[in-house]
Amino acid sequence: MSPDLPAHTIDVFHRGRFRLVQPKGGGHRAGVDAMILAASVPAGFAGRVADFGAGAGAAGLAVLSRVAGATATLVEQSPEMAQFASLTLDHPANAGFRGRASVLVADVTLTGTDREAVGLAGNSFDFVIMNPPFNPAVDRASPDGLKRQAHVMEDGLFDRWMRSAAAVLGAKGSVSVIARPVSLAPLLAAVSGRFGEAEIVPVHARAGQPAIRVVLRARRGSRGGLTLRPPLVLHGETGNGFSARAEAINNGNASLFED
Amino acid sequence: MSPDLPAHTIDVFHRGRFRLVQPKGGGHRAGVDAMILAASVPAGFAGRVADFGAGAGAAGLAVLSRVAGATATLVEQSPEMAQFASLTLDHPANAGFRGRASVLVADVTLTGTDREAVGLAGNSFDFVIMNPPFNPAVDRASPDGLKRQAHVMEDGLFDRWMRSAAAVLGAKGSVSVIARPVSLAPLLAAVSGRFGEAEIVPVHARAGQPAIRVVLRARRGSRGGLTLRPPLVLHGETGNGFSARAEAINNGNASLFED
Repeated sequence: MSPDLPAHTIDVFHRGRFRLVQPKGGGHRAGVDAMILAASVPAGFAGRVADFGAGAGAAGLAVLSRVAGATATLVEQSPEMAQFASLTLDHPANAGFRGRASVLVADVTLTGTDREAVGLAGNSFDFVIMNPPFNPAVDRASPDGLKRQAHVMEDGLFDRWMRSAAAVLGAKGSVSVIARPVSLAPLLAAVSGRFGEAEIVPVHARAGQPAIRVVLRARRGSRGGLTLRPPLVLHGETGNGFSARAEAINNGNASLFED
Repeated sequence: MSPDLPAHTIDVFHRGRFRLVQPKGGGHRAGVDAMILAASVPAGFAGRVADFGAGAGAAGLAVLSRVAGATATLVEQSPEMAQFASLTLDHPANAGFRGRASVLVADVTLTGTDREAVGLAGNSFDFVIMNPPFNPAVDRASPDGLKRQAHVMEDGLFDRWMRSAAAVLGAKGSVSVIARPVSLAPLLAAVSGRFGEAEIVPVHARAGQPAIRVVLRARRGSRGGLTLRPPLVLHGETGNGFSARAEAINNGNASLFED
């Protein structure tokens, strides 16, 4: 590793099938969200995947690790995070994926010719996965937090990301996104008209508590409606251990929608 | 009963606590949907409830049966169904509710002074419950069905019903609606901006199958976000019997959101 690399960790995912080089302390650290998002790509999928907001590459590599027919482009706006994504691909433990993955430093919210110019041309992908950034502070049940939450819902983030996803996908392409339930309204609004058939899996930490995430998958070129699937419950009633299904998804041994 | 009354049945709900006079064969027959919707009103609620699209009065009476502090206005556009609602209120077995309920023959999609003129003035209710009509045919997985489904999603039904709900409610009023999951996008769009804090309970026939309904409850005068609650599962893995929780809700012995 380069001596001027900021403090980092090397974390093992999918029971050792790949590793992630990511910043220590600062920046967004990948974890279960990325593994769940990656599990939304069917195991039998074959084609080109774009990981929008890839960070250090967790979700993209998790797709490559489980889906033999996939290639991945890790699209990341921040040069610092893109550097980590490159280091992830360069890590000897990930050598098996190197020929199937690349890093693209680009802002996914660009439009038109600007978007094409940075390498996000029309019909260049078959599947887009995305884990758009959000401010964890808005989860706080404070008046201030609620204000910020409302702001996040109105600021058009999902609309911009979904607009680009629709633009870079082929006619039958799919998109998956993991988000907070509070974002469901703007998320569905961003999908409407751009994608057809859509499915949602709510993700609950525990069976008796509200969902902490939703995963939405939608397909272009279809006119189907919205299906609300049974939830994924991460933990049992007590303790911090994963449920059998969450464990399989976190380790790249199960699909989120097909099982 | 009047001799010119169309064929009807008298059905027992809430383990005999009220009865419903409803058309036999034709028309919409009330059942579990209405009982689930009614369970969205907190047991401790006190105030004026409007049942939009009341039919023969199932949901409205189910609220009165469980919520001692509630009064109900059964708002029904069809004179034929409103007649059944009146017969329901006149039935001797429902005598205990008669002083707390009335029937209003009115189209809930009216606006402005037209809406006020039919008896749906501003600030006249504290809670609106609604079970908007939908065409069961759209659930079919046929190309024709999908077309109709898309049509239903675009025709502004939820927008019109929610606009009226917001208009007749006081500053802190609540609305509840039961709908199909396919309607989630237009439903959330109709709630956005008119109501704040919202909660959804998905309803599944069986734990491993997609949701068949969603119940959304939202409140005016709040700026909260959207909460996705644990699902209600109606049946066990096999057989047609209700789960303990579904049984309690169907019989008016449990709330949908508070328990």
